[in-house]
Amino acid sequence: MKIGKQSAPYQAICTSNPETIIVRGHDLVDNLVGSISFTEYTWLLVAGSLPDEKQRRMLDATLVAIAEHGLVPSVQAARMTLAASPEAVQGAVAAGLLGCGSVILGASETSGAFFRDIREEAKASGSSVEAAAEKLLRGYREQKKPVPGYGHPLHKGHDPRAKRLLAIARELGVAGIHCEIAKTVERLIPEIIGRPLVMNVSSAIPCVLLDAGYPLLALKGVPLLARTAGLIGHLLEEQTRPIGFIMSQAAAAAIEYDGPAPEGFVANEN
Amino acid sequence: MKIGKQSAPYQAICTSNPETIIVRGHDLVDNLVGSISFTEYTWLLVAGSLPDEKQRRMLDATLVAIAEHGLVPSVQAARMTLAASPEAVQGAVAAGLLGCGSVILGASETSGAFFRDIREEAKASGSSVEAAAEKLLRGYREQKKPVPGYGHPLHKGHDPRAKRLLAIARELGVAGIHCEIAKTVERLIPEIIGRPLVMNVSSAIPCVLLDAGYPLLALKGVPLLARTAGLIGHLLEEQTRPIGFIMSQAAAAAIEYDGPAPEGFVANEN
Amino acid sequence: MKIGKQSAPYQAICTSNPETIIVRGHDLVDNLVGSISFTEYTWLLVAGSLPDEKQRRMLDATLVAIAEHGLVPSVQAARMTLAASPEAVQGAVAAGLLGCGSVILGASETSGAFFRDIREEAKASGSSVEAAAEKLLRGYREQKKPVPGYGHPLHKGHDPRAKRLLAIARELGVAGIHCEIAKTVERLIPEIIGRPLVMNVSSAIPCVLLDAGYPLLALKGVPLLARTAGLIGHLLEEQTRPIGFIMSQAAAAAIEYDGPAPEGFVANEN
Amino acid sequence: MKIGKQSAPYQAICTSNPETIIVRGHDLVDNLVGSISFTEYTWLLVAGSLPDEKQRRMLDATLVAIAEHGLVPSVQAARMTLAASPEAVQGAVAAGLLGCGSVILGASETSGAFFRDIREEAKASGSSVEAAAEKLLRGYREQKKPVPGYGHPLHKGHDPRAKRLLAIARELGVAGIHCEIAKTVERLIPEIIGRPLVMNVSSAIPCVLLDAGYPLLALKGVPLLARTAGLIGHLLEEQTRPIGFIMSQAAAAAIEYDGPAPEGFVANEN
Repeated sequence: MKIGKQSAPYQAICTSNPETIIVRGHDLVDNLVGSISFTEYTWLLVAGSLPDEKQRRMLDATLVAIAEHGLVPSVQAARMTLAASPEAVQGAVAAGLLGCGSVILGASETSGAFFRDIREEAKASGSSVEAAAEKLLRGYREQKKPVPGYGHPLHKGHDPRAKRLLAIARELGVAGIHCEIAKTVERLIPEIIGRPLVMNVSSAIPCVLLDAGYPLLALKGVPLLARTAGLIGHLLEEQTRPIGFIMSQAAAAAIEYDGPAPEGFVANEN
Repeated sequence: MKIGKQSAPYQAICTSNPETIIVRGHDLVDNLVGSISFTEYTWLLVAGSLPDEKQRRMLDATLVAIAEHGLVPSVQAARMTLAASPEAVQGAVAAGLLGCGSVILGASETSGAFFRDIREEAKASGSSVEAAAEKLLRGYREQKKPVPGYGHPLHKGHDPRAKRLLAIARELGVAGIHCEIAKTVERLIPEIIGRPLVMNVSSAIPCVLLDAGYPLLALKGVPLLARTAGLIGHLLEEQTRPIGFIMSQAAAAAIEYDGPAPEGFVANEN
Repeated sequence: MKIGKQSAPYQAICTSNPETIIVRGHDLVDNLVGSISFTEYTWLLVAGSLPDEKQRRMLDATLVAIAEHGLVPSVQAARMTLAASPEAVQGAVAAGLLGCGSVILGASETSGAFFRDIREEAKASGSSVEAAAEKLLRGYREQKKPVPGYGHPLHKGHDPRAKRLLAIARELGVAGIHCEIAKTVERLIPEIIGRPLVMNVSSAIPCVLLDAGYPLLALKGVPLLARTAGLIGHLLEEQTRPIGFIMSQAAAAAIEYDGPAPEGFVANEN
Repeated sequence: MKIGKQSAPYQAICTSNPETIIVRGHDLVDNLVGSISFTEYTWLLVAGSLPDEKQRRMLDATLVAIAEHGLVPSVQAARMTLAASPEAVQGAVAAGLLGCGSVILGASETSGAFFRDIREEAKASGSSVEAAAEKLLRGYREQKKPVPGYGHPLHKGHDPRAKRLLAIARELGVAGIHCEIAKTVERLIPEIIGRPLVMNVSSAIPCVLLDAGYPLLALKGVPLLARTAGLIGHLLEEQTRPIGFIMSQAAAAAIEYDGPAPEGFVANEN
């Protein structure tokens, strides 16, 4: 059956014949393999043209910043999944990536959309970035929505990754309107939201990448791609030094059953 | 409950405190972000130490070679999933990666294990690589198992990506025993299996990476990581030029229902 | 690290010891296995107590209604995934379920929330269901949001599954305020939205189940559980009569590459 | 491109037109919705014809037996995923199902194949079930492969679910050759493997269902379908009493970092 209104049966990413593979207009084998880095290729795949040196360095910096942060929930889910299903590494990676959501890891996307909204509000109303940011932040507070990309459970004073990414953006001359917006938001938060919330890596990534010309709608791809590398490291370790079931046992032991039970029943799951 | 025999509650990838994040012994923010490429970081995460220049170039070449090959089944699954569930880009990427299996895309892992087995057989029996390869290939033929990493539905004469990766391995001085084994297998296949099957990208990746010192058990991570970049490009395009439902309609139209139906029933799903 | 504000380390679903497994207060082996149907058990797991006969029949009817509708996108994604990764049936099922999203299949959840909002608006404002429905529908039109659970690409005149589910709810004496709301919305749509959109199965499921006492927040579980049964049927067939790659080839052939290519390049992917 | 040798573009599960949906030859709306239970429908979808009463009761019993066993790894992965990505219940269910693998939960499939192999060995060699089981068990011991469906981390004396399923198969008159094989294997294990391993639910499910006429290749669907119901219960609870991040914190706290770190670095992730 025909679902929806899609009507343009085209794609512009890759085509091939038995001898040649063309990606974004380039001959993959003759001009890309061996000639460019994976980061440059990622930019090409996503943005449609090769990055300049600044863009490449900015994307590299964000991917390195977000790829790994220890035994976070998505890594635990992936390692537990591999322990149960060692025949399918792809399933364990998938289980890990499914935790790149709106609450953790996936906030790069919503944070980038928030910065765009502030930029457009400033432009539409002819007001300053500060006035536009204040207006939108007040809206978030009224709706009790969390400000995406601000605050961190561990790095409360500041998120060192965010600070470093903004410093690199300045060094490279990439920093522009989105970095300005991001810092303005951080400055306004204590008064408007009522407590300080520092920029975390998920607001730093979109502001430096949007300033570098990376597409807004592909922002979620950055943590997803980066974490895949982290997950592969963890899943290799899980094959040689397994901890998936140890973590699972500890997690289960931390939770108590408080539902009904027949008289005399004594739980003992160990 | 305690499942299995896991007993060493350790990981050696990442630790942190509020100011500092340590990855594989390095200070993430001070020494890695902005200093190394994502490919170097991937090698560090997986192998535990930073790659040298040859290793980095070899990994870059394999990631670029495998990341994208048009509207393959896994890309279709991902784009259809995003069309149905636009709220969850992570779900669409996961759906795409779940198709990196033993039949397509995931063969890097099994192909690498096959080369290792040949290497170990030659060592154990004191025979030549050729004799060992012949012995194992005959075993595959007897069990009618496909030889992992050989043959390609489109690139029948030769897979240009495989040829290029081996050339790069030679240029870099990386090519060694695993490349030799891979080419020996290709040479023996016509006689032993009964028809020519060319090395495809999934046998080229393991032989050049194993020769470069990349860990065998992380080989499946290479197509998984690379394809994530390809999927992000496709999912960005799907958001702006959707084809997920067009592809689905064409796929459904290619299949006929041949089960029972009440008399007089006329199918019409368009 | 401690993420978020979770502080009550409890669950009330299942506990056990080596001899006994307790689910929702019942002895699983002595009182449930062999005594109740899977549908009754699903209700118990989700709602916390066993259903009465009407509730059981209503849930059975919705699960049967939504489980299968041929080669829809999620089934295609699952069958393509199995063709590529036959070693992991669980991955193919997961790929299929990831397409139960906000656009197709997953609308039971949003449709149920929409009905609840209308019910609460009527109560809060002391107005009629009709007035409340009209107010919310006008809001959807202004924001150009699709009305969840109305309209169907194939069943344009009426969705026979929706009609049947409402008839069963009436026969069982289950139909109440949510069914009334659902039909009121259908009646108002032509005038407010500007064209007729019939109730589809994704609005019928929430209205009959909410009237039966099924929890709103578990509504998405109904299509997810039901489709799992459909997917298992398809994946069994895929193992014996594979069509995953045939569908993929047809889907790819329906899309043309319209990006740049080197002069003289002729695509030929067949 | 054309992958593989698929050539029969048919499916025999479902067809439709705007008024009617046909499933396995039946009119879905007129003859199935409201008339049969979800378990009967599952059998129809999978096996192609409606079950008799014994088959229906046997399938119900297995689904109820395996659906829920507390905070097992797959449930933890699902709840952590929902905590991180509350926008995508389908992603959390998928993450949970990806843990139905060869080590836990997914063994119904491999156990069923093991019983078939014993049955076929007995037939081919004209030997007794006992002799055939002994031969195959010795093969498992030599290859140090675990016997699928035997042994349980919690239920060491006996798995009460397995015992109950076999009793039901006897009561219904369903028990046949596969139940005999399963018990023979249990009896032989202490001598051949060297320690007692009781039948667990993953060997009980295939023997009772194969005896009832359920298709071998769809056995993995039983735990997958059943656990989906369990997961939906847990994900509803996670929305109202979240424990995903509590479990994650406990799991992380159970693991120590034993890799290198700069001098003076003190980990403190709490």
